[in-house]
Amino acid sequence: MKKSLFHAIDGSVTAPAGFIAAGVFCDIKRLGTGKGSNKGQKRDLALLVSQSPATAAGTFTTNQVCAAPVRLCVERVQRGVARAIVVNSGNANACTGRQGQRDAEMMAKLAGSALKIPAAEICVASTGRIGVPMPMDHVKKGIEHAAALADASAASGRHAAEAIMTSDTRPKEVAVEFKLAGKTVRLGGMCKGAGMIQPGMSPSGAPPALRPLHATMLCFLTTDAGIEAKTLQAALNEAVAKSFNRITVDGDMSTNDTVLILANGRAGHVALTARSPELPTFQAALDYVTLELARKIVLDGEGVSRFVTVRVQGARTPAEADTAARAVANSSLVKTSWCGGDPNWGRILCALGYSSARVVESKVDVGYSLPGSRQVLYSLRKGRPTKTTFKALCRITTASAFDLHIHLHQGQGAALIYASDLTESYVDFNKGDVNDPTTLGG
Amino acid sequence: MKKSLFHAIDGSVTAPAGFIAAGVFCDIKRLGTGKGSNKGQKRDLALLVSQSPATAAGTFTTNQVCAAPVRLCVERVQRGVARAIVVNSGNANACTGRQGQRDAEMMAKLAGSALKIPAAEICVASTGRIGVPMPMDHVKKGIEHAAALADASAASGRHAAEAIMTSDTRPKEVAVEFKLAGKTVRLGGMCKGAGMIQPGMSPSGAPPALRPLHATMLCFLTTDAGIEAKTLQAALNEAVAKSFNRITVDGDMSTNDTVLILANGRAGHVALTARSPELPTFQAALDYVTLELARKIVLDGEGVSRFVTVRVQGARTPAEADTAARAVANSSLVKTSWCGGDPNWGRILCALGYSSARVVESKVDVGYSLPGSRQVLYSLRKGRPTKTTFKALCRITTASAFDLHIHLHQGQGAALIYASDLTESYVDFNKGDVNDPTTLGG
Repeated sequence: MKKSLFHAIDGSVTAPAGFIAAGVFCDIKRLGTGKGSNKGQKRDLALLVSQSPATAAGTFTTNQVCAAPVRLCVERVQRGVARAIVVNSGNANACTGRQGQRDAEMMAKLAGSALKIPAAEICVASTGRIGVPMPMDHVKKGIEHAAALADASAASGRHAAEAIMTSDTRPKEVAVEFKLAGKTVRLGGMCKGAGMIQPGMSPSGAPPALRPLHATMLCFLTTDAGIEAKTLQAALNEAVAKSFNRITVDGDMSTNDTVLILANGRAGHVALTARSPELPTFQAALDYVTLELARKIVLDGEGVSRFVTVRVQGARTPAEADTAARAVANSSLVKTSWCGGDPNWGRILCALGYSSARVVESKVDVGYSLPGSRQVLYSLRKGRPTKTTFKALCRITTASAFDLHIHLHQGQGAALIYASDLTESYVDFNKGDVNDPTTLGG
Repeated sequence: MKKSLFHAIDGSVTAPAGFIAAGVFCDIKRLGTGKGSNKGQKRDLALLVSQSPATAAGTFTTNQVCAAPVRLCVERVQRGVARAIVVNSGNANACTGRQGQRDAEMMAKLAGSALKIPAAEICVASTGRIGVPMPMDHVKKGIEHAAALADASAASGRHAAEAIMTSDTRPKEVAVEFKLAGKTVRLGGMCKGAGMIQPGMSPSGAPPALRPLHATMLCFLTTDAGIEAKTLQAALNEAVAKSFNRITVDGDMSTNDTVLILANGRAGHVALTARSPELPTFQAALDYVTLELARKIVLDGEGVSRFVTVRVQGARTPAEADTAARAVANSSLVKTSWCGGDPNWGRILCALGYSSARVVESKVDVGYSLPGSRQVLYSLRKGRPTKTTFKALCRITTASAFDLHIHLHQGQGAALIYASDLTESYVDFNKGDVNDPTTLGG
């Protein structure tokens, strides 16, 4: 991937031509503190609209317990066409039975009426508490308000990025610009997610080959490139496999994980197909945007104090490399040791040993490097401690981000997982307070 | 199991006839604060000896990275005969290469010399930091000291139980008395374990059918019953499958998990075989002792504030029930919600959904009861919230122990896991302090 293929620009979902957005407060948590306006309240409803027809693709949680909007989107995305996305935070519309399904459909219908677009071309996403009915009267006001406000400004894109946040501490936006067949093209995206993060998405919601564990993350991408729906889906699958499906905060896969992309072709080039010579450029831009957004999720993970890139090489197969990397990245003991900045390899070797990947103690290398640095300091070589000093290792492992290198020397399988530490703040945040049920997990 | 088959008595490993024990301090962590004596120091070396030949059985971690003493014991236990066990805390002798293997063998040799027993009849166990060479000069002094002190008193049994502790806050001992063929028989045990707890043991260290994830727990059992080695191994397998292999504190399976039992036949009855009518009585007593000890480990888990018995019914198979129960019991989000006393079912349904067990949202029941109570309060029936009040549910989920009942309505498979919550104290304890490397995880 040559960096010169594209360059980052300001903004997010409204950066590409022909997209408008809005983010409003409509009191989905029923705090009773607003009336559809946003007077200092946290926005909780976003609308994202292509002003002309667009192709669409998506990937969705493989959790067997999946939210109503996910079921709706899986179906709509299979048709390859969509014009708008309505998203709310504060309520996941998950485990809400048939009423939940009706509510998701109603959200599309309401947005369709407000935008004068067929409801069948509107996707829906939700995030927040599980098992609580959607406050549809509030949602209706929010959708109408957002439809009236939506415009192509960067500010409105930011408002949408804010409206999809739950425990996120900051909005997450990325956009790039590049050339396709001589035309200037833009691709932008926003996402949310901080806990319940280990996505394992597939296009249909059916388990992919490598099935990870679990998170709510939502990501919405827009581009003015023109691209055939099937080619767009294939490109998205590839990008998600290398980004969102490789992150973990707490090893919990959400009921709501969703990535959606709309491509409206406003850039004016001939629509890309699987055989277009320009496709690799589009893929590179999409890979960059999804990976940047995925990394932002881990960096903003609940209570996270360290970002660790776990790189496993030398497994018998890529699947075993993935298994080994996830065993390490999700071990409570390894994650707490990262919290402490501890460079010990014992817990790492222990986690590798109980993974289902083939591990031979006397073959394993464990090393650390600072991100971007080629200098790897090994603490373990062929299962034996090296002479690298504890102090030298700590200089890396007490940094806010580092890479963990594991070589199993069993074959050619490699995998990479973006992980975080486990901190007291994570526990404090997620334990909630039974005297204030609004703080509890859904 | 009729309770009248046996009754609990005071003491532990020295309660049965013909067993002596000792626990001493020999400064295995090289704190430099003692010289083999125990002047206010934490004991770190235990010796447990049968005064006459005994049959032996054991189960061991299935972690591929297993400690040197485990490898030694697996081999010795296969012969079905052992007379003594030497155990140290403070150093796991794991990931210590060939020197570790030599050190484990030397520990048996040293104990053999001191006790005048062939080294081949001595088992070894270690727990503590991973990857640090054993301080054999200290170990030698400790073994000699312990051999000189060992006696049949309850106090010495307690000293041994103290010497095997690591992050445990209290020694864990159980003993029972019962009748076999008219003779009075005793069975006693001690164990340790508080973190790195999700044992998945098998007799050979090879993966069992249901392979759980991971902990260091050690358990040593003694009985003056007489029992054929093969029958003893089968009885132990059954008892461990229902006790230690059903607990989890943090989902991490240790490199050192070990359960050993010695049976010396001093009670004087005809040795039990697989066809003895008295075998069920022995099994019931063994089941009771191992389960009590296993429960003590969870109750003393690092930072644990709540003991949760996860009961899954109605899975398609017992293996799926086990998978579902462990997904719930090891979910960071479920465990933090238990810390907060939160009765929400959303995170539970979410964890069930990403487990590999078959789960249909609209079929699932979730309920709570206080331990021993038959009154189950359901928060969810067939995937829908019940009318049970939040307050009523909280009365159960804010108790120090409760049972979580999950019915999947997919088949006849059932499983039970003894679990704990995840607290700030767990993180604080395990993150350590890089400025004081003795606090770090090995």
